[in-house]
Amino acid sequence: MEETAQLVPPRIPGLWQGGGLEETAQLVPPRNSLGHSPEEGLMVAKQVMKQINSGNLIRKMFQESRRLIAEYGRDNIYDFTLGNPTFEPPPAVTAAIIQVMRSGEKGIHRYMPNQGLEETRSFVAEKLQAKHDLPFSSHLVTMCVGAGGGLNIISKSLLNPADEVIVSAPHFPEYVHYTANHGGTLVVVPSSPSFHLDLNTIERAINPKTCAVLINSPNNPTGVAYRKGELDELGDLLRKKSRDRELPIYLISDEPYEKICYDGLITPSPFQAYEHTILVTSFSKDLAIPGERIGYVAVSPSCYDAGNIVSALNCAQLSLGFVNAPALMQKILPLLGDAIVDIAPYQKNRDLLYTCLRDLGVECVKPQGAFYLFPRTPIPDDLAFVKKAAEHKVMLVPGTAFGSPGFVRISYCFETEMIERSLPALRDVFSLR
Amino acid sequence: MEETAQLVPPRIPGLWQGGGLEETAQLVPPRNSLGHSPEEGLMVAKQVMKQINSGNLIRKMFQESRRLIAEYGRDNIYDFTLGNPTFEPPPAVTAAIIQVMRSGEKGIHRYMPNQGLEETRSFVAEKLQAKHDLPFSSHLVTMCVGAGGGLNIISKSLLNPADEVIVSAPHFPEYVHYTANHGGTLVVVPSSPSFHLDLNTIERAINPKTCAVLINSPNNPTGVAYRKGELDELGDLLRKKSRDRELPIYLISDEPYEKICYDGLITPSPFQAYEHTILVTSFSKDLAIPGERIGYVAVSPSCYDAGNIVSALNCAQLSLGFVNAPALMQKILPLLGDAIVDIAPYQKNRDLLYTCLRDLGVECVKPQGAFYLFPRTPIPDDLAFVKKAAEHKVMLVPGTAFGSPGFVRISYCFETEMIERSLPALRDVFSLR
Repeated sequence: MEETAQLVPPRIPGLWQGGGLEETAQLVPPRNSLGHSPEEGLMVAKQVMKQINSGNLIRKMFQESRRLIAEYGRDNIYDFTLGNPTFEPPPAVTAAIIQVMRSGEKGIHRYMPNQGLEETRSFVAEKLQAKHDLPFSSHLVTMCVGAGGGLNIISKSLLNPADEVIVSAPHFPEYVHYTANHGGTLVVVPSSPSFHLDLNTIERAINPKTCAVLINSPNNPTGVAYRKGELDELGDLLRKKSRDRELPIYLISDEPYEKICYDGLITPSPFQAYEHTILVTSFSKDLAIPGERIGYVAVSPSCYDAGNIVSALNCAQLSLGFVNAPALMQKILPLLGDAIVDIAPYQKNRDLLYTCLRDLGVECVKPQGAFYLFPRTPIPDDLAFVKKAAEHKVMLVPGTAFGSPGFVRISYCFETEMIERSLPALRDVFSLR
Repeated sequence: MEETAQLVPPRIPGLWQGGGLEETAQLVPPRNSLGHSPEEGLMVAKQVMKQINSGNLIRKMFQESRRLIAEYGRDNIYDFTLGNPTFEPPPAVTAAIIQVMRSGEKGIHRYMPNQGLEETRSFVAEKLQAKHDLPFSSHLVTMCVGAGGGLNIISKSLLNPADEVIVSAPHFPEYVHYTANHGGTLVVVPSSPSFHLDLNTIERAINPKTCAVLINSPNNPTGVAYRKGELDELGDLLRKKSRDRELPIYLISDEPYEKICYDGLITPSPFQAYEHTILVTSFSKDLAIPGERIGYVAVSPSCYDAGNIVSALNCAQLSLGFVNAPALMQKILPLLGDAIVDIAPYQKNRDLLYTCLRDLGVECVKPQGAFYLFPRTPIPDDLAFVKKAAEHKVMLVPGTAFGSPGFVRISYCFETEMIERSLPALRDVFSLR
């Protein structure tokens, strides 16, 4: 999944106190005419309250970064917490927005079909057809509010109460909520030591409540891209398991980093590997426009019940309040062709950091895509390690946030200059014992 | 709520057959290797399947309009079904987008706090402070993905399982889903004969499971704007009922039509009427940009548990996949000042249609805002009436869609020329017995 960010906590004097690393978000009860004590008085839904109190570790680390930056100055803090690229979109994005706004075309900002503009869906379908060699039509493409919005409409469309979705750890933390929001349960299984799919753990987790297997490649947080062979084996497993039961198991492939790949890698097609596949992605990373919330869901032409799934996605898009993906962003996509951010700086950053870690003897899988490294921590307790690293002004996210204690995530979607400057501090931190 | 639109059904040959007025959406089962029969084979979540099959009457009427337009030509069909204005945004919108894109400012399209840009929230807070004479700060404002997105994050933030939200009929149909999506129940009570609040029916509906009362003024579908006195009385009732119980009942005020008011009307402040108020709105109607999905949620400075509610709204914004309201649209708002669409054509349309209906002796409340009329049907069966009207090429939405049989909704956010041309047909239709 794409990296999201609650960069600044809501801070209402007297009502909220954010804070240091140790504390979970402290919620100070309001005083008002009702005079309730905190716990009984909290009107916020219990499920959300639990989310607030358990907190989002990525967000917490970022908050701590901001505190340290305020205290020590920006140049003295190495913030590797967020996947929020500091690079600008390709110039074609700005040009396309201005072109559309100057065109005089009527109705650009109006409501449209929940599924999205026909011209945009046709553009996406053509790209899909070219990459996956399958007869995609615009009917199978639903434009959505980023991959996060896409995953929510997929969950809403597919999950009945207590249905399960299987994912391999480490995994993007919000997957838990994307499933629970709609009555389902995320079942987390370990991946292989090299962070590839472990088909045995997946097979053992499959049961009659399994609705889907969710994969994310190139992966956040490991940077691993799944190979064609392993997708084919996953497809074979799901096909076999689907035969054993009444209904097929869906494969949901979350691919926002598909185009952020290094050394010329082209990721294999999940549609080719398995017929009952639903792909979800966004333009957040390859166009560097994550704040604009534009992505799409594509249902395989050979997917079981495809027509109803597309109808359900549209129903969910409306009823969850997305209604449609932002109109102007839909409008510019067909004008952009193959525009993409320059990934050379990402690859350079990866090489700098990976080489640094390797030279220190740190166990780390070399990323093939995305913009994260996920090395093993020199001490087993990743939460303790992250605290120690913060004392050295190096801000990292603990693997625990991704369901994999004993690791940390290093995000490297930043200026190479910052990465270069950080290397001595990083060496110190990874030499901690 | 704002009018939403699934304008075109997903149409996959052999998998979906949309259709005429009589039929609910017919779902033709797919044929595939699994060879399942339709019912058992449907993988779509049961809750969403129910939505698809029960259909959205606004959408169905619009589809039928499109069919008739294709058959008889655009000039021969009078389509009053959708609240999708054909007017263009004020020129300031286009100018602001171009200005921002040419500014060379960095980071415009990046992730931001889930709550939204500080500059945009400050702009909104100042407007709120001016209108409501209360100390709004940017902390109390959460930018959201249209009012539909706003209502979903509010529901997610407040509702525990089986909690109830009370609304007066007629009401915007999607409210049912906005509540059910998050485990709650919408409790519908009748309004007064003049479509104002009936405090007796609201009082009788309040019970220990009541979490909130939801109001929508100016109202879709009636066009009625609630008076200061009635909001004050509602506030008194909720204050009294909140004292009787452990926790306050919230007032949710959904106001996307606040600025679409006629004869100089300025709507009263729900915040002044009741302290535990949450306002949700969008810029869809007053800037005519419904496809861009930009709105906000404002929590009263005196609202119980305001700090936690704002935290919960941010959590919900992230976990439901909205992440943040579209960045560029947030960016332009502070540049727009008080820009608003020209409402003179709406008022002219209202006057034309209202006078026409009144001269025919049709029972109809004169709208003070929004762009809908909600007259009583000349025959009690509004579904039958809508079918008859369609035979006269006049497309209306039955009151049943809004929980009020025996009425129809006429949307008038269209060119006055079309309204004028339609009057003879409308006269014929409302003379039907």
